[in-house]
Amino acid sequence: MSIIKVAILGFGTVGEGVYRTIQSHAAEFTAVLGKKVEVAAILIKNKHKNRDVGEEVLLTTDFDEILGLPQLDVVIEAIVDKEPTFTFLKKAIARGCHIITANKEMFAHHGKELLDLSKKNNVSVGYEATVAGGIPVIQTLRQLLKINRVSLIQGILNGTSNFILSEMREKKQSFAESLCQAQENGYAEADPTNDIEGFDAFYKAMILSRIVFGEEPEWRDVERQGITSITSELIAAAEKLELRFKHVASISREDGYIIASVKPVLVGNENPFYHVEGVENAVNVHSDIVGRITLQGPGAGMFPTASAMIEDLVYVCQSRPAERNAVKITAECIGSSKTVEQKEYWLVQGLAESSGVTLVEEVSEGILLIEAAKKDLDVLAAQQPGICYFSILGEIDLSVLNKAAVTVI
Amino acid sequence: MSIIKVAILGFGTVGEGVYRTIQSHAAEFTAVLGKKVEVAAILIKNKHKNRDVGEEVLLTTDFDEILGLPQLDVVIEAIVDKEPTFTFLKKAIARGCHIITANKEMFAHHGKELLDLSKKNNVSVGYEATVAGGIPVIQTLRQLLKINRVSLIQGILNGTSNFILSEMREKKQSFAESLCQAQENGYAEADPTNDIEGFDAFYKAMILSRIVFGEEPEWRDVERQGITSITSELIAAAEKLELRFKHVASISREDGYIIASVKPVLVGNENPFYHVEGVENAVNVHSDIVGRITLQGPGAGMFPTASAMIEDLVYVCQSRPAERNAVKITAECIGSSKTVEQKEYWLVQGLAESSGVTLVEEVSEGILLIEAAKKDLDVLAAQQPGICYFSILGEIDLSVLNKAAVTVI
Repeated sequence: MSIIKVAILGFGTVGEGVYRTIQSHAAEFTAVLGKKVEVAAILIKNKHKNRDVGEEVLLTTDFDEILGLPQLDVVIEAIVDKEPTFTFLKKAIARGCHIITANKEMFAHHGKELLDLSKKNNVSVGYEATVAGGIPVIQTLRQLLKINRVSLIQGILNGTSNFILSEMREKKQSFAESLCQAQENGYAEADPTNDIEGFDAFYKAMILSRIVFGEEPEWRDVERQGITSITSELIAAAEKLELRFKHVASISREDGYIIASVKPVLVGNENPFYHVEGVENAVNVHSDIVGRITLQGPGAGMFPTASAMIEDLVYVCQSRPAERNAVKITAECIGSSKTVEQKEYWLVQGLAESSGVTLVEEVSEGILLIEAAKKDLDVLAAQQPGICYFSILGEIDLSVLNKAAVTVI
Repeated sequence: MSIIKVAILGFGTVGEGVYRTIQSHAAEFTAVLGKKVEVAAILIKNKHKNRDVGEEVLLTTDFDEILGLPQLDVVIEAIVDKEPTFTFLKKAIARGCHIITANKEMFAHHGKELLDLSKKNNVSVGYEATVAGGIPVIQTLRQLLKINRVSLIQGILNGTSNFILSEMREKKQSFAESLCQAQENGYAEADPTNDIEGFDAFYKAMILSRIVFGEEPEWRDVERQGITSITSELIAAAEKLELRFKHVASISREDGYIIASVKPVLVGNENPFYHVEGVENAVNVHSDIVGRITLQGPGAGMFPTASAMIEDLVYVCQSRPAERNAVKITAECIGSSKTVEQKEYWLVQGLAESSGVTLVEEVSEGILLIEAAKKDLDVLAAQQPGICYFSILGEIDLSVLNKAAVTVI
């Protein structure tokens, strides 16, 4: 039986998960691919560390040694930084290898270039693991929704932020306490900036935008906000309105423009996101034929991430040139982002009086439910730096309010 | 550009949805397939009914006239009954056509034969629309989870039953009132037997079993129960325990046996099913690598069902012989069903005293929370015909009970 030779770059949590899974699921690979899958080499940092890996596997710190192997079919990348990863993967493609990556930051920056390069070299790129861990959202969009026109995709894409928001609400903890909790559980890194400031979710959103709409909005036009401004008071006020804070990435096309944002929003009980707690991820896909479908599952972790890369391994080995790296086509043209004009409800804190917005209800001390257009709030925010405001996804049920009479402040 | 010629059997809600979608999404088909998709013929019942269909389309009541067309590539079937549908599709396969069906009852009975036949004739079968309407659960299992070993799949697969249970709980209505409501909304047919007695969900479960485990349990061994035994009292008792009734199809493999059931069960807030309301469908897939992922979306309706068939149309046109109609392989052998032995919690009504089971709590008048093994309850049920009992999926939080002391009755 012929053999597929694989190299794994990095032997951290994910890299080891991929290696173990290839060993434990040999029977499945053989049955599905009709070929044996063999890990030929692993790129490591420290040669002296003891690792439980078969002797037939080349352990090396030198990527060129891996490229020099007589047979190499797929390179699976599980390193963190943008570089040298990007350089490695370009070389792998030039060498004629399919590549599989879990590196969202690198792929958000260089995905287009890698996809173009792979087309030229007639190889495939698997990047399911870059978004929503084990949830097969990218392959659902690439393979299962080819005719549906996606108009909006929303996701809880950062498990760390979602865990912190869940802890704050359930245990009535402060942000700081919940962050510590996340770090103790290994859900947040020593420097949590990427997660809590929304960079991680932003990169994932840009990757989704490219799949769904064929391109990305101007990065500078994308509103990116983390969860650091969410206080216990805000969470309590939201609960009074039967709403929950979720950190949501949203990418939509309106009148041929891509509009994207990554920020905390408020969702009601009717939205599947309301019930997504802890480190789970979830994605709502709105398409013109099927309507809204929701995918939910583990957004990170050794084996969920390995699962995405392992299934990608089958995908890249089976995909045909014609289908390779196809992004979802759209029959319409796409411009750059624009700002939304219509009035919405907002939960606002730190708003000065006589701001000219419509007050629906003072939910609690200094926290207001108002109705306003985003552009007007942006203007106010420029004048009143203290303000923070959060939009409400979908309808709000005003009947939960004591009164629904509105005044202008 | 070459053309793919399609025939649609039946022009009811689904058939018309498929026809309209092929017209409205011509650009997507061309972009994805590199070919034009044309509806060449539609099989209708009544020739004299006026239909808004292009003149180039052959409208006929005679299937053989369709088979006789000079070019015919795909037959899309949207008829209800097992026959003549099965006969039609066999002929279509023999004619060298790919087939696509939404007919769960027919496919549950004859799917294996159609798949075998299609293999011989080197064509593909698309049946995404037979289970969970627009949710791409079948293609997720066929195409996206090829290496993951699925151990358990649970689904809310009948929107009508779920709608009735939601209405009963939310509006404190009787079963009869909620059924009428479902019929008024067009969610239930004049004869609702198929839905409310669990036959529809049973057929879907058997189709899932074949995909996931390569075969089905003995049909007679599958516990099938509808929702007609659910009363307002039971729903109220469940709410005291912070549980909700859901009609759940469950297919699992334990020690090489397939165990399947289709019945109302109780789920807690931690289960994604708890929040699935109305006509929505949802499926939990438990696999060894990724863990649990949940797919949720519209389980029926003109366009959700059309979406499934339309995406199948791309699938059958693109699939290669090697991959065609592959069912998920399992590295283990599979026997027939067996009964479960371990003790579980149950909500029971109509249990006589001195039944020898462990009482956890009398939740309300005559409705008990007990702990027992299923086989013992089955024995009791044979002796005490009045009994109905419902298992609880996952953990139950005994802290919601006034007391957690247990006695034997």
